Amino acid sequence: MALIVQKYGGSSVADADKIKNVACRVAATKDKGNEVVVVVSAMGKTTDNLMALAKEVNPKPAEREMDVLLSTGEIVSCSLMALALQSMGYKAVSLSGPQAGIETDSSYSRAHITGIQPKRLVKELEAGNIVIVAGFQGWAREMDITTLGRGGSDTTAVALAVSLKAHVCEIYTDVDGVFTADPRLVPEARHLREIGYEEMLELATYGAKVMHHRAVELGEVYNMPILVASSFNNNPGTLIHGGIPMEERNKARGIAHDINVAKVTVVGVPDRPSIAASIFEPLAKAGISVDTIVQNTSIAGVTDLTFSVARSDLDKAMAIMAPVAKSIGAKECVSDATLAKVSIIGTGMLNSPGYAATMFRALAEQGINIQLISTSEIRITCIIAENRVKDAVKVLHKAFELEKA
Amino acid sequence: MALIVQKYGGSSVADADKIKNVACRVAATKDKGNEVVVVVSAMGKTTDNLMALAKEVNPKPAEREMDVLLSTGEIVSCSLMALALQSMGYKAVSLSGPQAGIETDSSYSRAHITGIQPKRLVKELEAGNIVIVAGFQGWAREMDITTLGRGGSDTTAVALAVSLKAHVCEIYTDVDGVFTADPRLVPEARHLREIGYEEMLELATYGAKVMHHRAVELGEVYNMPILVASSFNNNPGTLIHGGIPMEERNKARGIAHDINVAKVTVVGVPDRPSIAASIFEPLAKAGISVDTIVQNTSIAGVTDLTFSVARSDLDKAMAIMAPVAKSIGAKECVSDATLAKVSIIGTGMLNSPGYAATMFRALAEQGINIQLISTSEIRITCIIAENRVKDAVKVLHKAFELEKA
Repeated sequence: MALIVQKYGGSSVADADKIKNVACRVAATKDKGNEVVVVVSAMGKTTDNLMALAKEVNPKPAEREMDVLLSTGEIVSCSLMALALQSMGYKAVSLSGPQAGIETDSSYSRAHITGIQPKRLVKELEAGNIVIVAGFQGWAREMDITTLGRGGSDTTAVALAVSLKAHVCEIYTDVDGVFTADPRLVPEARHLREIGYEEMLELATYGAKVMHHRAVELGEVYNMPILVASSFNNNPGTLIHGGIPMEERNKARGIAHDINVAKVTVVGVPDRPSIAASIFEPLAKAGISVDTIVQNTSIAGVTDLTFSVARSDLDKAMAIMAPVAKSIGAKECVSDATLAKVSIIGTGMLNSPGYAATMFRALAEQGINIQLISTSEIRITCIIAENRVKDAVKVLHKAFELEKA
Repeated sequence: MALIVQKYGGSSVADADKIKNVACRVAATKDKGNEVVVVVSAMGKTTDNLMALAKEVNPKPAEREMDVLLSTGEIVSCSLMALALQSMGYKAVSLSGPQAGIETDSSYSRAHITGIQPKRLVKELEAGNIVIVAGFQGWAREMDITTLGRGGSDTTAVALAVSLKAHVCEIYTDVDGVFTADPRLVPEARHLREIGYEEMLELATYGAKVMHHRAVELGEVYNMPILVASSFNNNPGTLIHGGIPMEERNKARGIAHDINVAKVTVVGVPDRPSIAASIFEPLAKAGISVDTIVQNTSIAGVTDLTFSVARSDLDKAMAIMAPVAKSIGAKECVSDATLAKVSIIGTGMLNSPGYAATMFRALAEQGINIQLISTSEIRITCIIAENRVKDAVKVLHKAFELEKA
C-alpha cells in the first residue's frame, strides 16, 4: 500500500461536474489500494472574484485580511470534494491548511512553510479516510491564516508529500505534462515522459506554466518524485525526478518562453563604483525582481546600463528610476515593454560550448535580433522582440532537433 | 468607554456598498469612544448558493463537510468588513469563530456554544482594533469547524456580549425592531421601544421574524440587554431587557403569526394507554417538533388525535405516521397544510382570564374558525385557516387596542 499525494488545480475543480470527475479519479487511486491525500485549489475564478470584491471595499487591501478572504476559496473546494467522494460511498474528510498542520511564517500573501505537524492528517488516514487538504494556505502564530502566494497549492502538495513520506506527489492540471516547447507554438513539440529537477526548475522559472518553480525546488531538496499530468485524460504525464539516466542528460531538453518581460535602460551613466548599487538597491527595496543586467563598455567615463524586469513591474520600476537617474547624473531612463524571453534548457549544455553558437545562429538566420543574453549552467536565455517569439521558439526547436526522441 | 457588540445580518452586508454602509455605522460607534466588536453573517444569498453547490455533488451532504463549506460565507464578510474599516482609516481585524474562541459541542449544523475563550479578542481590543467576528460558527474538539444552525449569528453576538461583559448587544437587521404586529399586515401596528425577554421569546418563537428565540433566551439567562434595530436608518429600535416597568407589563404586548403550520389527525384511535407514546416517539426520533396536541373526548373507546407540525416537516411526518396508524389500529391519518397560527402575547394576561375570551370573540365575529388552541402563561395561540391570517391579526390588534401606547 503506497501513500500518494494528488493536487488538482483550479481549472480541474471549476464546477460541480469537474469536481465529480476529479472525485472519480481520486476514488480509482484509492481502489488500487493506495492511501490518498488530495490537495485542491480554489474553483476556477473564485480567487479573482474575491480579489475584485475586496478592491470594491478597499482599493489597497491589507495582506492579513486578503489572506483570510482568499483562503476561503480552497476551503469551499475541499469540502465539496469530500462531499463528492462521500456520495460515491468513500470515507473522506476535508482539512483546512491549519487543520492539516501546515505552519508558516507571518509573511501574509507570500508565506513560507516552516514546518508541518501531520498528526491529525495521519490519524484521518489511519481511520481509512481519503484526506482532502485546502491548498495555498497555512497558519502563522496565534492561529492567523496565511496564504502561500504563487504556486501555493503545488507547494502545499509537495510539502505534504515530503512530510508524509509519500510514494509520489502527483500534480494534476489542464495539460499533459511537460513538452519540449509550448505545443500551441510548436505543433511538433514532443511530450517528455521524465525530466530532472534542475531542468524543470529552469523551464518553470523561464516561462513554462505547467508547474511553479517553487514546488519543483522543494521536490528537488527532498528528492520527492513529482508527476505532472492532466486531470482531463489518462495520458501518462511527466515524471520530475533526480534519477535521469546519463545519456538522457547529455542534450538540450526543452525551450521555455515568457512574454512578461520589459527592459529599462539608464542612458549616460557616469562609470563610477557604487553606481550599480545606487540603481538596484531602491528596486530591491520595492520588491521588484531584476532579471538580466547588462552594462556596456564605458566610453569616456560614461556607460549605458540595461536590465529586465517583469512587465507587470515596469511602471513601478520607472517611477523609482526617474529620481535615481537624476541623482546619479545619468542622461535619461528609457524603457521597452514589447519584449520576450526565449530560453534553451538542458543539463547537456554544461560542457558543450556549441549550444550557445547554435542558438544565436538559428535566431540570426531568422532575422531575430537578440537584445540581452543571460546564462546559467544549464540554460541560455535571449531577450528578443515579443512579436518574434513564435518564430524563435519554432526555429530553436528545430535547430536542437527536439522533435526527435 | 463602553464595550458594544453589534451584529449585522446577511441583508445588511449583501454587497460591497452595503458593507461600506455598515462600516460607516461601526466607525460612528467607535468615534463615540466605544470599544466595538462586530459580528457579521454571510453576504445575502451566499449560504443558499453554497448549499445548492453541495447538493450538486452530493444530494445528502454530511453535516461535518456542510459546516466546513457554509462557514466560509461568514469568513468572507468579516474580512471584507475589516478591509472596509481599514480603508476608512480605522484599525480593524477579522477573527473566525475559532479564532474568537467560540467553543461548541460536536453537533454539526446545530452546534451549541459550550464556552468562549476571548483571550485573543480582548488582546485585539486592547490594541485599539475594531474586532470583526464571523458569526454562526465555532469549533469543536480537534479544531473542527461547527455551525450553530438557525439564529446562529444572533447567538454568536449575544454570547460574545455576555462573555466580554458588554454594555449592550445590538442586533441590526432590515426592520426597525419589534412591532405590536407585522406592519405589512397591520398598518397601524405600533413600534415598541422596549420589551421584556419572555414576551420577546414568545413573539420570536411564534412567528416574529425579527430575531431568533435562541439568542433572546441566552440574553435572558445572562440579563444582557439586546437592541434590535435597522441597519438602513437611524430609527431607535427596540430594547429587549429585563427591567420593564410594572405598569407596562400589565397588558397584551403584541401579536405574532406564522404560516409554516400543518396539522395531522389520526382518526379512530383506540383509546388505550401508551397510544400517545406510540404516535409521538417515532416523530421525536425523526427530529420532528410537534407543537399543539389535542385529543378529543373518547366515544365508545375510540378517539381522534390531532397535532400540528411545521409545514416543512409534514411529508416526513405523514410518511412516519402511516405505518404507525396501521399498527395501533387507527382508522386513517389525514393532514391539512393550509393552516396558520396567530398568537397574542403579553405578561399582563397571566392574571386576566378575560384575554382568551376577548381573543375568541374577536375571531368569531369575523367568522374565523379556530381549529386548535394552545396556551402558555403569557401567550394564547389559535390555529386557523391560512387565508384568514391577515383578518385575524388585524382584528386582534384592534380588539386589544395595541395601536394605543
